[in-house]
Amino acid sequence: MISTPLKIRAVLFPNFELLDVFGPLELFGALGERVSIEMLAETPGQIRSAQGPQCLADLSFLETTAPDVLLIPGGHGTRDGVKNPYFLEQLRILAEKSHLVATVCTGSALLAKTGLLDGKQATSNKQAFEWVCEQGPHVTWIRKARWIEDGKFFTSSGVSAGMDMALALIAHLFGREESLRIARYAEYLWNEKSSHDPFQAS
Amino acid sequence: MISTPLKIRAVLFPNFELLDVFGPLELFGALGERVSIEMLAETPGQIRSAQGPQCLADLSFLETTAPDVLLIPGGHGTRDGVKNPYFLEQLRILAEKSHLVATVCTGSALLAKTGLLDGKQATSNKQAFEWVCEQGPHVTWIRKARWIEDGKFFTSSGVSAGMDMALALIAHLFGREESLRIARYAEYLWNEKSSHDPFQAS
Repeated sequence: MISTPLKIRAVLFPNFELLDVFGPLELFGALGERVSIEMLAETPGQIRSAQGPQCLADLSFLETTAPDVLLIPGGHGTRDGVKNPYFLEQLRILAEKSHLVATVCTGSALLAKTGLLDGKQATSNKQAFEWVCEQGPHVTWIRKARWIEDGKFFTSSGVSAGMDMALALIAHLFGREESLRIARYAEYLWNEKSSHDPFQAS
Repeated sequence: MISTPLKIRAVLFPNFELLDVFGPLELFGALGERVSIEMLAETPGQIRSAQGPQCLADLSFLETTAPDVLLIPGGHGTRDGVKNPYFLEQLRILAEKSHLVATVCTGSALLAKTGLLDGKQATSNKQAFEWVCEQGPHVTWIRKARWIEDGKFFTSSGVSAGMDMALALIAHLFGREESLRIARYAEYLWNEKSSHDPFQAS
């Protein structure tokens, strides 16, 4: 059961990738009063991105209620994230109680490391693909895909692919016309076909 | 004379548009140690975006040294910005001492309102184009353009167009190969031709 407004909760951690978070949140944000966006982290407060700018986490993982959409970004910080059992356990609990879970880029490695993608299809970015596969040996990794949907899990390729996936999620929740309207608003050329991945040769 | 590392300074204000800031900063950030990114505002500290998430301004406009690239985003907050003489005066001083100035979306209206675009060509987003034109009656506004370069001023169309402009700026400063590398890294399909604007009919 989806809430009104839709509760989008984005996970932050040190050295998260800026566009993995703010590409999708820009598009979800265009839903206006139909969404509520909050930022989560192990500890609320300032979190520095991999690119330098700092953002604010509103709540800790423990403080939030069940998200409708949990957004997990990638970035250099995922290298520390997969070695942090407390972080992974909190992420697993949060993902389990989320209606939908969306990962961008190496965010797929974090979700895979929780075990929740075992037996499912998923994708991730090109540059760290082998490392991501190692974090989830029981996941069916699909290399050529802009994003993959398997049950409640949406996983995307690198960085900008998160925006295509976000529009697919919005279409799933609010209809394709709404995604097309938002793409026009953001003057963004939506790659609407998940299997069309211009960054991976066949 | 450009600094090493290149000093990118992004302007924040209440209700700035998330992707206008973080699309370009994602791409500039991929230059790694060749750039230093800082966020500026009238008052340093927390600033809430139009979409909800809060970010941190590191410095006030008065505290920063001359930027190599000044990035001015759009968003709903520009409606207040054009009515704030102190903000506009600080922005004018900052833009005057910047080597290059880049605006995204209605950020072009803020720069136009300072008078610095008078007699120059510029563009902005589609949805607020008439309002933007009113903020700079002595600017030659070009409606069909992904971005416009005129002297040291780069102005872009709506939201996502800022990413195409950022890659053009990176090509201008570091060469086209570097922009192509960064586009691949971010799995972003660069619209490399500034006059190709899929969101404006001829």
